[in-house]
Amino acid sequence: MDSPVPAPSPTRERLWRIIFLSDTPIGRTFDVVLLWLIGLSVLTIILESVDEIRLPHESLIYALEWVFTVLFSLEYLARLWVVRRRWRYALSFFGVIDLISILPAYVELLLPGTHYLMALRVLRLMRMFRVLKMAEYMGEANILLAALRASRRKITLFLTTVVSLVLVEGTVVYVLEHDANPDFANIPQAVYWAIVTITTVGYGDVAPVTVPGKMMASIIMLTGFAIIAVPTGIVTSELGRAIGDQKRPRRRCDECGWEDHDPQARFCQHCGTRLG
Amino acid sequence: MDSPVPAPSPTRERLWRIIFLSDTPIGRTFDVVLLWLIGLSVLTIILESVDEIRLPHESLIYALEWVFTVLFSLEYLARLWVVRRRWRYALSFFGVIDLISILPAYVELLLPGTHYLMALRVLRLMRMFRVLKMAEYMGEANILLAALRASRRKITLFLTTVVSLVLVEGTVVYVLEHDANPDFANIPQAVYWAIVTITTVGYGDVAPVTVPGKMMASIIMLTGFAIIAVPTGIVTSELGRAIGDQKRPRRRCDECGWEDHDPQARFCQHCGTRLG
Amino acid sequence: MDSPVPAPSPTRERLWRIIFLSDTPIGRTFDVVLLWLIGLSVLTIILESVDEIRLPHESLIYALEWVFTVLFSLEYLARLWVVRRRWRYALSFFGVIDLISILPAYVELLLPGTHYLMALRVLRLMRMFRVLKMAEYMGEANILLAALRASRRKITLFLTTVVSLVLVEGTVVYVLEHDANPDFANIPQAVYWAIVTITTVGYGDVAPVTVPGKMMASIIMLTGFAIIAVPTGIVTSELGRAIGDQKRPRRRCDECGWEDHDPQARFCQHCGTRLG
Amino acid sequence: MDSPVPAPSPTRERLWRIIFLSDTPIGRTFDVVLLWLIGLSVLTIILESVDEIRLPHESLIYALEWVFTVLFSLEYLARLWVVRRRWRYALSFFGVIDLISILPAYVELLLPGTHYLMALRVLRLMRMFRVLKMAEYMGEANILLAALRASRRKITLFLTTVVSLVLVEGTVVYVLEHDANPDFANIPQAVYWAIVTITTVGYGDVAPVTVPGKMMASIIMLTGFAIIAVPTGIVTSELGRAIGDQKRPRRRCDECGWEDHDPQARFCQHCGTRLG
Repeated sequence: MDSPVPAPSPTRERLWRIIFLSDTPIGRTFDVVLLWLIGLSVLTIILESVDEIRLPHESLIYALEWVFTVLFSLEYLARLWVVRRRWRYALSFFGVIDLISILPAYVELLLPGTHYLMALRVLRLMRMFRVLKMAEYMGEANILLAALRASRRKITLFLTTVVSLVLVEGTVVYVLEHDANPDFANIPQAVYWAIVTITTVGYGDVAPVTVPGKMMASIIMLTGFAIIAVPTGIVTSELGRAIGDQKRPRRRCDECGWEDHDPQARFCQHCGTRLG
Repeated sequence: MDSPVPAPSPTRERLWRIIFLSDTPIGRTFDVVLLWLIGLSVLTIILESVDEIRLPHESLIYALEWVFTVLFSLEYLARLWVVRRRWRYALSFFGVIDLISILPAYVELLLPGTHYLMALRVLRLMRMFRVLKMAEYMGEANILLAALRASRRKITLFLTTVVSLVLVEGTVVYVLEHDANPDFANIPQAVYWAIVTITTVGYGDVAPVTVPGKMMASIIMLTGFAIIAVPTGIVTSELGRAIGDQKRPRRRCDECGWEDHDPQARFCQHCGTRLG
Repeated sequence: MDSPVPAPSPTRERLWRIIFLSDTPIGRTFDVVLLWLIGLSVLTIILESVDEIRLPHESLIYALEWVFTVLFSLEYLARLWVVRRRWRYALSFFGVIDLISILPAYVELLLPGTHYLMALRVLRLMRMFRVLKMAEYMGEANILLAALRASRRKITLFLTTVVSLVLVEGTVVYVLEHDANPDFANIPQAVYWAIVTITTVGYGDVAPVTVPGKMMASIIMLTGFAIIAVPTGIVTSELGRAIGDQKRPRRRCDECGWEDHDPQARFCQHCGTRLG
Repeated sequence: MDSPVPAPSPTRERLWRIIFLSDTPIGRTFDVVLLWLIGLSVLTIILESVDEIRLPHESLIYALEWVFTVLFSLEYLARLWVVRRRWRYALSFFGVIDLISILPAYVELLLPGTHYLMALRVLRLMRMFRVLKMAEYMGEANILLAALRASRRKITLFLTTVVSLVLVEGTVVYVLEHDANPDFANIPQAVYWAIVTITTVGYGDVAPVTVPGKMMASIIMLTGFAIIAVPTGIVTSELGRAIGDQKRPRRRCDECGWEDHDPQARFCQHCGTRLG
């Protein structure tokens, strides 16, 4: 459990339990209310960005923004109040996310014109994962995370190789296309094209026009075929292992050492001895 | 068997057997005729939507539409007649599909101008799966479904993460591109772009134009690489398990009937009897 | 070996051995020459389609075409001459391919203006696989084919589901987009868009413009994510099985039945008995 | 260890150890400095290609280029000096890469106007892998490489099939689209389209416009679905095997040293000794 430690005071510890855990009815209610608040506030932010919706309802949206900001500010202060080591919480991952999701509103009050930063309040969504962390999806998430963690080094190595590859491939196509195609005016642009291509996204906003450029692009696409298989292979292998480990608790016979028994087995498959 | 229970009358039970099962020659004929009717009626709907085909043949298509509507209506009434609990069937998945595939024609008769809803009759295609359900692909479908069902929670968790990710990524690129690019005029539009990108569809109808926007897009694409590997990994692992379970040769104990023994087992795991 | 049976004559049988097998030096030379002829003739067809290359070299290309046509015609006649059952060969897969790769040239002689059919001579490429069939890649190809064959029914079922899905999804987006977007003028066009989307190709030549259309498209893309995982999962599972079966010949102990021994093992891992 | 053999002289051998190995503090410092030089020089090349950055800082970038060129030239000469067989090193993979990363600068001095070749200095990036080769990612890289090497023949076979497929598919769509669509003016262009499609990149710069062309394209995309699964299946299977081999706990016989025993083994497979 990596939740912060409560402050040494009965009131604060009770509040801490409600806010940070979900093992009491009131704690679970708090989580549900918080999830709804996060969802509604993110929806408000999204709708606010649409001119057709904001302009006719400007004052309503303005009011809603401040309601959410005040509620999340209170929640942030409450969290700071109940934990034992405040700085540690304030600098933790979720502490920073909490601050970022309320700060833009106050910043805009002081520095008008920074309105676009408001959109960063959408990071509030990340807080959702704190609530989910304690919920039923924990086990599944752990398997996925274990698989990703086990593949971490392989994926790092793979991404390093891919980054080098797109740098080299982008430069080669830049040399080939440069004169004929303003889309390949410089290497960063060509590398952007190489990334769009090797990930098979393929917007088509940048595309080769010369014959050598298209030939090179064809080679890149066909080899990219094999490349896209690598991360899938990595994750699948590790995931298969993680799922297998989880699903197959096996029993061992003390007599002959045979290990491959079902959890419900009563006799050894191999020597017939009764299992303990 | 989740087919509805027949009504308690010999005539209706006989008809029920023809319509709902396919264990008699006439039942199989009914299935084949129904599959052809579904196929032809869907083909008519598709061709009707093409102006170049509908305009010269308007009356023929109009006649065909009503032939199919009447036939499917009769079939729907017959199904209602032969089952024991009518409301239960009417509200079941296939009952609703059956109704949706005939209703638009009658609705248009009463409310002219709703012609586009006619296209929804294409949902008749879903009925095809009812017929296939009893056919030879049952076993294969079960393996695929078992694998998907086993991965249900992991895929839910994964989709939740992806939805949060595209909301956050879309907002960040919205903040970066907003001023320079009318394609990113609001967050929903930016989220649409993020979905198009992370799924590697990449239409190119919305694409970043600023340097920071393209850099962010590149990061999103490269990390999307690892993300696309996750559902594949999940389905592959579960599918491998489902296929493995099906194909693994197992030995059965004649004494107690326990079936789950290794091929090398010599004693029953459950009762300790020596295997033959 | 599914090569045709030779005709009962020493000369023809000798020629048959050269043409259909590759177990003699001259048979292998024949294969290599044939591979080169196929490659060069396909290259000629491809270059011929480029106006900038054909126009200045028209007579050279015309001559080359006839050289290849005559050589492949002679080869086709020789194959017909040496096999025992001529019609059977002529109607076999490779017999038909052989005919298609020479026919267009003669057809054009009789019916000028069918020049574009000439491009179909590119099907000659398929003949390459006949030569490769006898070569070293046989073993690898067998594993891939075994995996694909084992997944045949699952892939058929999957493709049926995907075809139904794109029909339904295309129709729904057609209903939503129809009035606002000429790209979705009819259902076939909308289904084409759905196929382009669900396979993540995403040309962008057809794309939704209305808000409900884009929302529906987003849902289709996100669920397509899970769908693309299915064929990969199927092929991977079967391939893993096929490779595993090939690589793990195991020995069984006659005494205790333990099966999991290396091929080089000399004693049973479990009971210590010397293996036979 | 495939590093070159040092020359038989104490000074040169000491220098060799610093340059080619990283088992001493000074050797590791050399590696880190080299990695930074490579990174900075590649960054310079990339920024130099951007007109907005090069034009105002032309002399600074020019100076930086020569600093890097001189440093890498010294390093190249040092490598040549310390190895025993110079030609062998000069012609090895990394020897050639080393030369290519310094040559363009000198070539431009002699032949002005070849400036675009300068971009090829980006191949210096490949040298990075030499340094990484000795570092901690070695183990992970070996697993990935083992998996790729084991799938080499299968991937070759697969790429051959895909190349034949795109040639045939491109030609068929060329025949269908040729008259109506200038994008399919010749077969190479159509093959380029087929590659863009089958790899699911889908730029949309070339797309079919006729009804038969779109139908053919739809079939190609749907079958491409199954095709993209094959390399993933290959890599995943081999990777699963490679990771499994690495992680499988094995027991070793103290008597004869044979290592490949199951965890439940009781006797040595090779010499029959009872395992401890």
